Amino acid sequence: MNLLVTKQRHVIERFTTFNGSLIKNVQVGWESYGKLNQEKSNVILITHYFTGNSHAAGKYHEDDAEPGYWDAIIGPNKAIDTNKFFVISVDSLVNINAFDGTTITTGPSSVNPDTGKPYGLDFPVVTMRDFVNVQKSVLESLGINKLHAVAGPSMGSMQAIEWASTYPEWVERLISVIGTGSIDAWTTTALEQLTVPITLDPNFDNGNYYNKPKNEWPKKGLTHSLAFITQSALHPEFFIQTGEQLGYRPIEDDVLANIKNKPSMVNWLMERAADRASSMDANHLLYLVRANQLFVTGMQGSLEEGLSNITAKVLLIPATTDLLLMPYHAEKIHSIMQDNKQDSELIYLNGSLGHLEGLAGIVKHADAIKAFLNN
Amino acid sequence: MNLLVTKQRHVIERFTTFNGSLIKNVQVGWESYGKLNQEKSNVILITHYFTGNSHAAGKYHEDDAEPGYWDAIIGPNKAIDTNKFFVISVDSLVNINAFDGTTITTGPSSVNPDTGKPYGLDFPVVTMRDFVNVQKSVLESLGINKLHAVAGPSMGSMQAIEWASTYPEWVERLISVIGTGSIDAWTTTALEQLTVPITLDPNFDNGNYYNKPKNEWPKKGLTHSLAFITQSALHPEFFIQTGEQLGYRPIEDDVLANIKNKPSMVNWLMERAADRASSMDANHLLYLVRANQLFVTGMQGSLEEGLSNITAKVLLIPATTDLLLMPYHAEKIHSIMQDNKQDSELIYLNGSLGHLEGLAGIVKHADAIKAFLNN
Repeated sequence: MNLLVTKQRHVIERFTTFNGSLIKNVQVGWESYGKLNQEKSNVILITHYFTGNSHAAGKYHEDDAEPGYWDAIIGPNKAIDTNKFFVISVDSLVNINAFDGTTITTGPSSVNPDTGKPYGLDFPVVTMRDFVNVQKSVLESLGINKLHAVAGPSMGSMQAIEWASTYPEWVERLISVIGTGSIDAWTTTALEQLTVPITLDPNFDNGNYYNKPKNEWPKKGLTHSLAFITQSALHPEFFIQTGEQLGYRPIEDDVLANIKNKPSMVNWLMERAADRASSMDANHLLYLVRANQLFVTGMQGSLEEGLSNITAKVLLIPATTDLLLMPYHAEKIHSIMQDNKQDSELIYLNGSLGHLEGLAGIVKHADAIKAFLNN
Repeated sequence: MNLLVTKQRHVIERFTTFNGSLIKNVQVGWESYGKLNQEKSNVILITHYFTGNSHAAGKYHEDDAEPGYWDAIIGPNKAIDTNKFFVISVDSLVNINAFDGTTITTGPSSVNPDTGKPYGLDFPVVTMRDFVNVQKSVLESLGINKLHAVAGPSMGSMQAIEWASTYPEWVERLISVIGTGSIDAWTTTALEQLTVPITLDPNFDNGNYYNKPKNEWPKKGLTHSLAFITQSALHPEFFIQTGEQLGYRPIEDDVLANIKNKPSMVNWLMERAADRASSMDANHLLYLVRANQLFVTGMQGSLEEGLSNITAKVLLIPATTDLLLMPYHAEKIHSIMQDNKQDSELIYLNGSLGHLEGLAGIVKHADAIKAFLNN
């Protein structure tokens, strides 16, 4: 028996971004699980990851193939217990799943009310602060002004920590999974690699593809970017196991015979990426990368300054095999907060999935999360 | 006082590749340091890495900015002592440095004697076995038929181990630095990512760019590929240290203001890559990736079978922070050879340079290498 959920729509007539731009008619989707109590004191906000959206748990229809990404820990009697908490999540601005039929977002693919045409690269650069401010607008529209907790994986962890630093009076507890408190010099260049296949795609045309037939969109570049994201988010151990199942061999006859043929593992990765690319937008990926690149807790000054504002209790959960946001990110936050005598706890996710342990492996820490939320 | 070296040229009139293709008029460069003894028993072959060539040590001219890449361990009284050994290295087929003015190689940029035009993607796929067979031809032309040792970093380690497996009667000692015995399912897809910027570059034109003006070559894609190689070959710690020196901040005004501006760390990485791209060839990079993807020790069957042929004493030197060919590669070789009661020794390079510890950090194991060679 699954939670059944419905996507809601929230509209902001005039939204001013962190960089001072005005976006008119911002629309985002949101979902909730469980019931808001009378005091509005039982709210847990879930902030989503790079390729995710607000579908954190439950199903839209009983026959959906998969529930939301953290369904293993969100639901009745689960770690984040929907019998007790009102759990809510919001589709980000520039959400990559712009064309999946359920995500509601505003970004380069949206029509600019001033011109009647899609923004393309005229859409303003947005940041984690903007994602947070949009979420705040949704919460305020429901009369909420306090979060029992905010929790999210990866890019969601950045939004969660940004919440706790910028609006400390709102946030009582923070759970950062496979996260970081700031994007460092390595991570910013690693993120940039994700944009390269898109901007080199001959169909990219400087982001002006929306009025062309879909077969002239930069889908090839987007597919390569998504394949690269999957590659980066996993660990060799997962690929090696998968390769064994698929009968991977380094020397394949057609690959040896012709430079144009690709190793079967490459084809396997690309086929999965191409499926996903159909419902995603290339420009939105560029804007998501930028939002990540621009992140430091508090969005000004240093990580140390940003963290010093936090009054929430903090639970940090890096994954030991993560190659994208390695455990040093969480360890750095923990170390600074310990020095500040702030309330920080650090536990590790083990397993062979790399960064993706924070999604597929999160249930391993269901008990720790439950205890943290009930404390 | 530097070793002064001169590039030599070796020609093979008809070379049959591992995949059964004929290449006419193969030309490769080679260098040597130290003197060949009368018995021709003091030969150490150095096999180079992906973006390297045969310039392993010394300088061409006293005023060269830098000596060869392993100069710290090759020279008079150094770990690989040129007072004692005749050290030789050969430019690979499809060498990436096709236009640097000193590398001599045969690949897609070479003129096909049958057509009078550059091969482009009609050049046959070549493998580590082919690189080894070209080296063997150079050695045989000097009357050599025994190697005191073969040693190489990264892609060089693959050639070295291929030597020891395919020609065990030649090889007395093998040093594999930041290496692998076979390309696994993760590594083959990671290598493929290097090819993406080139094949998506609108100037790539299926590899047929040689007869166009140089500004219509796929230099942009090649530059992105090289930036990605540098990213992959280093470790976050190095970038973070460099970022501190360069004053890196996550939030830069121009990057926040406009999606088209790039973070300064990205520009820093790209400028360095663009410099290198001028002397390199994009098609050659594709062929090098393929040669790596097709590697398993012995070039048939399993790693276990390939290793079982080896009679050489083996020294394996992975780097603990390597994110490209992580230590599990060397550990796997060591484990199999230990099980087979073969003579294998495993030591680690520590340091913050990631994969590049195998080049810039190799001197840390000068004593171990010296002892291994004199034993």
